[in-house]
Amino acid sequence: MNVLVVNAGSSSLKYQLLDTESREVFAKGNCECIGQDKGIFGHAELGGDKVKEDAVFPDHKTAISLVLKTLNELDISIDGIGHRIVQGGWYFDDSVIVDDDAMAKILEVAPLAPLHNYCEAEAIDYCRSAFPELPNVAVFDTSFHMTIPECAHTYALPKDIREKFHIRKYGAHGTSHRYEWMRAHEILGDKVHRLLSCHLGNGCSLAAIVDGYCMDTTMGLTPLDGLMMGTRCGSIDPATVCYLQREGGYTYDEVDDIMNKRSGFLAMSELTNDVRVIRDRATEGDPKCLMAFDMFGYRLVTMAGAMIAGMGGLDTISFAAGIGENDPTTRKAFCDMFEWFGVHIDLARNEIRSDEPRIISTDDSPIRVMVIPTDEEYMIALDVKRLVEAR
Amino acid sequence: MNVLVVNAGSSSLKYQLLDTESREVFAKGNCECIGQDKGIFGHAELGGDKVKEDAVFPDHKTAISLVLKTLNELDISIDGIGHRIVQGGWYFDDSVIVDDDAMAKILEVAPLAPLHNYCEAEAIDYCRSAFPELPNVAVFDTSFHMTIPECAHTYALPKDIREKFHIRKYGAHGTSHRYEWMRAHEILGDKVHRLLSCHLGNGCSLAAIVDGYCMDTTMGLTPLDGLMMGTRCGSIDPATVCYLQREGGYTYDEVDDIMNKRSGFLAMSELTNDVRVIRDRATEGDPKCLMAFDMFGYRLVTMAGAMIAGMGGLDTISFAAGIGENDPTTRKAFCDMFEWFGVHIDLARNEIRSDEPRIISTDDSPIRVMVIPTDEEYMIALDVKRLVEAR
Repeated sequence: MNVLVVNAGSSSLKYQLLDTESREVFAKGNCECIGQDKGIFGHAELGGDKVKEDAVFPDHKTAISLVLKTLNELDISIDGIGHRIVQGGWYFDDSVIVDDDAMAKILEVAPLAPLHNYCEAEAIDYCRSAFPELPNVAVFDTSFHMTIPECAHTYALPKDIREKFHIRKYGAHGTSHRYEWMRAHEILGDKVHRLLSCHLGNGCSLAAIVDGYCMDTTMGLTPLDGLMMGTRCGSIDPATVCYLQREGGYTYDEVDDIMNKRSGFLAMSELTNDVRVIRDRATEGDPKCLMAFDMFGYRLVTMAGAMIAGMGGLDTISFAAGIGENDPTTRKAFCDMFEWFGVHIDLARNEIRSDEPRIISTDDSPIRVMVIPTDEEYMIALDVKRLVEAR
Repeated sequence: MNVLVVNAGSSSLKYQLLDTESREVFAKGNCECIGQDKGIFGHAELGGDKVKEDAVFPDHKTAISLVLKTLNELDISIDGIGHRIVQGGWYFDDSVIVDDDAMAKILEVAPLAPLHNYCEAEAIDYCRSAFPELPNVAVFDTSFHMTIPECAHTYALPKDIREKFHIRKYGAHGTSHRYEWMRAHEILGDKVHRLLSCHLGNGCSLAAIVDGYCMDTTMGLTPLDGLMMGTRCGSIDPATVCYLQREGGYTYDEVDDIMNKRSGFLAMSELTNDVRVIRDRATEGDPKCLMAFDMFGYRLVTMAGAMIAGMGGLDTISFAAGIGENDPTTRKAFCDMFEWFGVHIDLARNEIRSDEPRIISTDDSPIRVMVIPTDEEYMIALDVKRLVEAR
């Protein structure tokens, strides 16, 4: 089945057209600077280089329509469209073929992710009206986390407030964590029961997965919570927000912006949120970049400890996304901090760069460590296939 | 040495006059409802019952002056006064004999704990002017945590904001955690290296203590962060504060109040913040009270996992304060969740009620579990003795 995967962000839209059987990607690209005066359209076809051209995208509809028009010229049939949706709220514990009811729910939960759900809905809306015969499947970043037990996902706030505003831990990166489990299980079979999935990219989260079910994750009501990230501070005392408003005169929107866009690696390095650059500087001895990694690593280790304790132990750890796949130093630092616990890394295996899933722990390590390059687009495409075939 | 220990809260003032050698408490009591129209003065002397009488305390000065006047009638010499101070900010890594400089610093850091430091300073101020010959020692709830490494106490916020507003993890309950280490070390000697100290009262926090030095704690910039507590929600996604203001129209003071005073056990039980009552109801099968303990226990286990991972393992766990000392069910639930990890509780020992420190794990448990009833007043008195003798 040929599936178009659409990932609409607040000011961008990425896409990939792929074959669920061969995993071949026929075309992929991105629309940048949506809603701004000048945009860029990047497009690459199988075996070809990426071509960039100027474009203007007043909204997400313009962007998706250009994508569909471009793909139409390829002469490859599209059998379905999968849309990544950041927030499924309290409604969706699985992906869904979008109908009017699903659309209404995606919009209803949008206040939980206002920068994302509205534009994602806009892209779906366009696809549904332009190609009414094509199935559109919504794949939620949150649905994998709906199995988290109540005692772990509930915030101890007054019931009326919790219920009225639907406050709880929703998490994110669910599609990636789900992929990690799927691949780990394909490779290890019944040897994997308790998996700590570490998605470490510009956004970072951990998931505690027991026999395929997510039991906890580090992100919370929003993707701010948990680990330190590219521009996000992660978990801090929530009273810090009130304190900054009281003492600093900031508005809540300003504090939200500070915590989400001006913090994390960017704030600690005082340089960039590009972790590759920060790693290079840290290797050269830059104290701020070293501290940024020390902080990141400490939070990674302690939150991993929390996830492990919540699962009652673990047998497998997987690393994915930008840092997880490409920064052996972070992986080694992490494993060294858990050496006492039975995590033994193989230094040579850890240095290998590859797009393939691989074990990087020693053969006799009681706890297995893997790098499993994530592929959310493929996971979304598989969901489209599964739901369309089950229809 | 006879030391008066003063613990001034936002609307109360507790005191205890004790002998640092014999640990005998000559008198203790409390002033309640300070700043309100009607107050209560409670006072008990060695071997006697507590006597309560009506009183009016317009401010903390009135309260401490009544305490000193009452104690004066006892004909016991007071050799020094120890004041519990909630927030020592970035200045104090140890207790200090109060001089003008210390007073100025206590007031300078007061915005970090506005409900506490100002009234504590008021009490010190009165003692210094009424009895200029007596040493006044400030004992900070935060100073024990000043050894927490930078990578663990720093929030990944922009540097200018962090520095201008002195934002970092300060923690609290330091005097109690310090006492736990002291007693554990007295009892176990060199057998204790890595201690997880669990202070579980109406306020709750964990401390990771390695060879006497605090390496991490669960409370943060303020005592809101970390575990779920009597009326505090503990750690939640900090973006929840912005979300509630945006979607609910609350002010930051209202959200602060909700998180600090209307959440935690009170919110989950929809009944009370008195954990003894909630335990009784839970035992009777009340689902809300059961859920409250499930949530409390899950957070306790996961945050313990975080502290343990940060220390790189542990050998001893201590329980203290209201829940820690008096709720065997919580202790058992905790230990059961760490059974896989080598925490083996002795059921009979766990049920013993006593004011004495005791080991409640089995003799062959790889990790030792203790109940060490905390005594912050005694710890404060010891600090007074130490600093006065070193003068």
